[in-house]
Amino acid sequence: MTDSVYDNYPPTLNPAQKDFLVRTVKDWATQNGLMVRPAPTFVSKETDPQGVLATNAPVTLFPSPFPKSCFEEAKALQTVYNKLYAAITCSEEWIGKIMEDLIDVDDFISNLWKVHLHVQKEGYTQTLSLGLYRSDYMAHTPSSSTTPQLKQVEFNTISSSFGGLSSLVTLLHSELLDTPPGHPIAYPKHPLLASGAVPENTAVETLSTGLATAHSAYGASKSIPNLPTCILFVVQAGERNIFDQLALSRELTRVHKIPVFRLLSSEILDHTSIPDSNPSRPLIYRPPHSPEGTQYEVTTIYLRCFYTPTDYKSPRDWQARTHLERSAAIKCPTVLNQLAGSKIIQQVLATTTGPDHLTSFLADTDPSLISRLRETFAPQYDLSLDGQGRSLALNPETALNHVLKPQREGGGNNIYKTAIPDFLHSIPENEWKRWILMELIHPPAAAKNVALRSDGEVVSGGVIGELGVYGTILWDQAVGKIYHNEQGGWLMRTKSEGVNEGGVATGFSSLDSIVLF
Amino acid sequence: MTDSVYDNYPPTLNPAQKDFLVRTVKDWATQNGLMVRPAPTFVSKETDPQGVLATNAPVTLFPSPFPKSCFEEAKALQTVYNKLYAAITCSEEWIGKIMEDLIDVDDFISNLWKVHLHVQKEGYTQTLSLGLYRSDYMAHTPSSSTTPQLKQVEFNTISSSFGGLSSLVTLLHSELLDTPPGHPIAYPKHPLLASGAVPENTAVETLSTGLATAHSAYGASKSIPNLPTCILFVVQAGERNIFDQLALSRELTRVHKIPVFRLLSSEILDHTSIPDSNPSRPLIYRPPHSPEGTQYEVTTIYLRCFYTPTDYKSPRDWQARTHLERSAAIKCPTVLNQLAGSKIIQQVLATTTGPDHLTSFLADTDPSLISRLRETFAPQYDLSLDGQGRSLALNPETALNHVLKPQREGGGNNIYKTAIPDFLHSIPENEWKRWILMELIHPPAAAKNVALRSDGEVVSGGVIGELGVYGTILWDQAVGKIYHNEQGGWLMRTKSEGVNEGGVATGFSSLDSIVLF
Repeated sequence: MTDSVYDNYPPTLNPAQKDFLVRTVKDWATQNGLMVRPAPTFVSKETDPQGVLATNAPVTLFPSPFPKSCFEEAKALQTVYNKLYAAITCSEEWIGKIMEDLIDVDDFISNLWKVHLHVQKEGYTQTLSLGLYRSDYMAHTPSSSTTPQLKQVEFNTISSSFGGLSSLVTLLHSELLDTPPGHPIAYPKHPLLASGAVPENTAVETLSTGLATAHSAYGASKSIPNLPTCILFVVQAGERNIFDQLALSRELTRVHKIPVFRLLSSEILDHTSIPDSNPSRPLIYRPPHSPEGTQYEVTTIYLRCFYTPTDYKSPRDWQARTHLERSAAIKCPTVLNQLAGSKIIQQVLATTTGPDHLTSFLADTDPSLISRLRETFAPQYDLSLDGQGRSLALNPETALNHVLKPQREGGGNNIYKTAIPDFLHSIPENEWKRWILMELIHPPAAAKNVALRSDGEVVSGGVIGELGVYGTILWDQAVGKIYHNEQGGWLMRTKSEGVNEGGVATGFSSLDSIVLF
Repeated sequence: MTDSVYDNYPPTLNPAQKDFLVRTVKDWATQNGLMVRPAPTFVSKETDPQGVLATNAPVTLFPSPFPKSCFEEAKALQTVYNKLYAAITCSEEWIGKIMEDLIDVDDFISNLWKVHLHVQKEGYTQTLSLGLYRSDYMAHTPSSSTTPQLKQVEFNTISSSFGGLSSLVTLLHSELLDTPPGHPIAYPKHPLLASGAVPENTAVETLSTGLATAHSAYGASKSIPNLPTCILFVVQAGERNIFDQLALSRELTRVHKIPVFRLLSSEILDHTSIPDSNPSRPLIYRPPHSPEGTQYEVTTIYLRCFYTPTDYKSPRDWQARTHLERSAAIKCPTVLNQLAGSKIIQQVLATTTGPDHLTSFLADTDPSLISRLRETFAPQYDLSLDGQGRSLALNPETALNHVLKPQREGGGNNIYKTAIPDFLHSIPENEWKRWILMELIHPPAAAKNVALRSDGEVVSGGVIGELGVYGTILWDQAVGKIYHNEQGGWLMRTKSEGVNEGGVATGFSSLDSIVLF
């Protein structure tokens, strides 16, 4: 059943149709800010010394079919997932026990944990915590005759990206379905390609509302005299995906009328301070461009950096992270919430033997919802001596149906199938704990699409699609009380088959939208 | 008085402030479609073979001061100007008499006139005519102690551009005035730079509504069986200013729900036809990408080409223009309306000796409005043997206060001041009729601004500002009846002093907005 949907999709384009679609998508992207800064391999510093050039984000020409049942289930479970990760973050001791094992093999985890311990010793001054999450799934379709099942690929608790650009791709495909209005011909006729077929995408509104909710929950300035308040986006230098982030700050500025500033992670210690004299520890931001030394008090820190070891180039960066963590600003996320998003936590949750963590964390939740959530887990294992994971990974036959992932959040560096045993043999055995073995999820085999890359090349062929659903939650870490818990907006990422890694901004895969079937 | 406004403007930026403003403008432009395709001198075809790269339109960092009295006067007169040019266009005989003189020296005028004669012989099948106009002015300020006067630089009746991008610059400067919201610091403090100081700019809405009004005035399809109807934007190949045009088509599509197609002028004869069998002569457009040969009937032809001789590369292009002209589609503009915009017409209108053309054309208009309109004319002269113009142009002393312009619409090729006598002596005397001598308008001498060019360079210094006001009018050419006459939206173009030519898309000058004083 599923295959028949994909077999005839997308419809074939003749040269004039392809030319029109590519040209329209190209121009639409530029007109509407569906953009990225070009890769240095495409545009050199010599060509564009001032960095003014931009190009379309990589996008598919067609929306991709996605099973309606899976889409609805992902949306229905998002607020439960939000609650789960808030509850985990509140269980500091439980996280600590899991991290303990990794501290001696993983500097990154170890340093994050130290930041937490450092601030805990002094005492956290802010108990509110904000999560802007994205839960990523595939429509698991091991054979064309089975009903597709929603399976989670990963859960992101830090820097969940692409909400801004994803909303734009949704709008692009929706407008193409009705181009020109009333008598559309931009796409060849196809039963899936009807006007209004792409579901609504509120990612920008949802994520911005999450940030705005934290901003107002922070309350009045804690400084004497009071300062104007702001939200601070902490970002990486040379961010090529900046227009995704600006979609959120534009919404916060235009709709919520909240001051937003962008600050490089390398400049945190230069431009922010916590007055020693103020026990509330407000985080004061003094913009370098401020004409009269105007200062702002940061209510909410939104991290679009610090999720990967390369963001910490020196001890000063760890110092900066600690500085933010100990401030009164609401962190999105806290170090603990970031750690809760490690692959190892997902693996522990998915383990079917031992204590039922899900039920403990979601004590007040309808048990049927908990089972539905559990259904989205793919089997995953640690590689401990006595565990099942080790034998599955080392046996080439069983390895074939698995992927080996670093237990940290974020894509990259996955080892696939038969490469797993060789890889494990190539590293010291005490480092095996850094890896999680996960059963492969099988996306629909016949899925195809056509993508316009950021360098303008048009590529078509078999694809693998990953659906992300966004959620936001604001809770009190001290008492576990939830003040805001919302689901809204989604992301479809489509990568060519054979390209094993994601990371849209680096050009390996495309932003997409969906039509439901 | 005027100088004191400009003397302290714009406020000085320290390096951090300049860096912030430039970065913000750069990113804002990309996020919001305030873009152009880069010049080939900036990005070569080898760097970007697929043509995906785009860069910010050249923009000023600050809005420019403009006298409130001049701005209000320009807006108040626009619908009178609209009416005037509709009335001139209806006076075919009067235009013909003026053109007669040029036909033997100006191939372009001559060929346009032939198109009109050709269609007139067969009989026009469409009497409705649409004008999308822009009247360009300077705030004439011969000395710092005089009250600035509104003086017209030119009146555009074809391809009046930059409405789309101008609206965006207005929004950019407005948002900068309130960045961050509530506690703005993007600009140094200055009395002119207050939140809300930039006047509203409805250029996109006004121009689109003009096109939409023509579209619906066309009425039902004249084809049997009926076809869906559309508006056709006829454009140049390799248009770098495409995002200005797309701002209008996006509004027509999203708000008015009208199908809009873009067609290269070189492809008119390939993809449009007028069925011989249909005496109404509907213009049928068959999009090359149409999946099933779907055809559309064109209600309105919006020319963003054909205003310059280089748009007519061969007799086939003239054939294409004739083909459009004889069709039932409403032309924006007709050939006659385009000719009405020639500099020579403006010169004849401005002539103070001989018949009072203004009063004849505006017979039913309040005489005080006519005098106010006349006040906006700068003295201008032809170079006929017995006229005053010839002596003013040949005498280096009087030439100093004049500019020599080709009598055609559109910028470019102006000769200034002392270069005039030498230039005239270098060309045959029988070609002198192709030129109009105009007294120089003196913009405020102390005006300054800072511009971000499309290649990312930041340039500051003395500037000359030109304000354009948009207007739209729909009338019946046969009976002179006006169905729609509206004013709305404006453009501020600011060029560095010493750069004599406009043409924002070629990078000589910047898009700007205004603050009134």
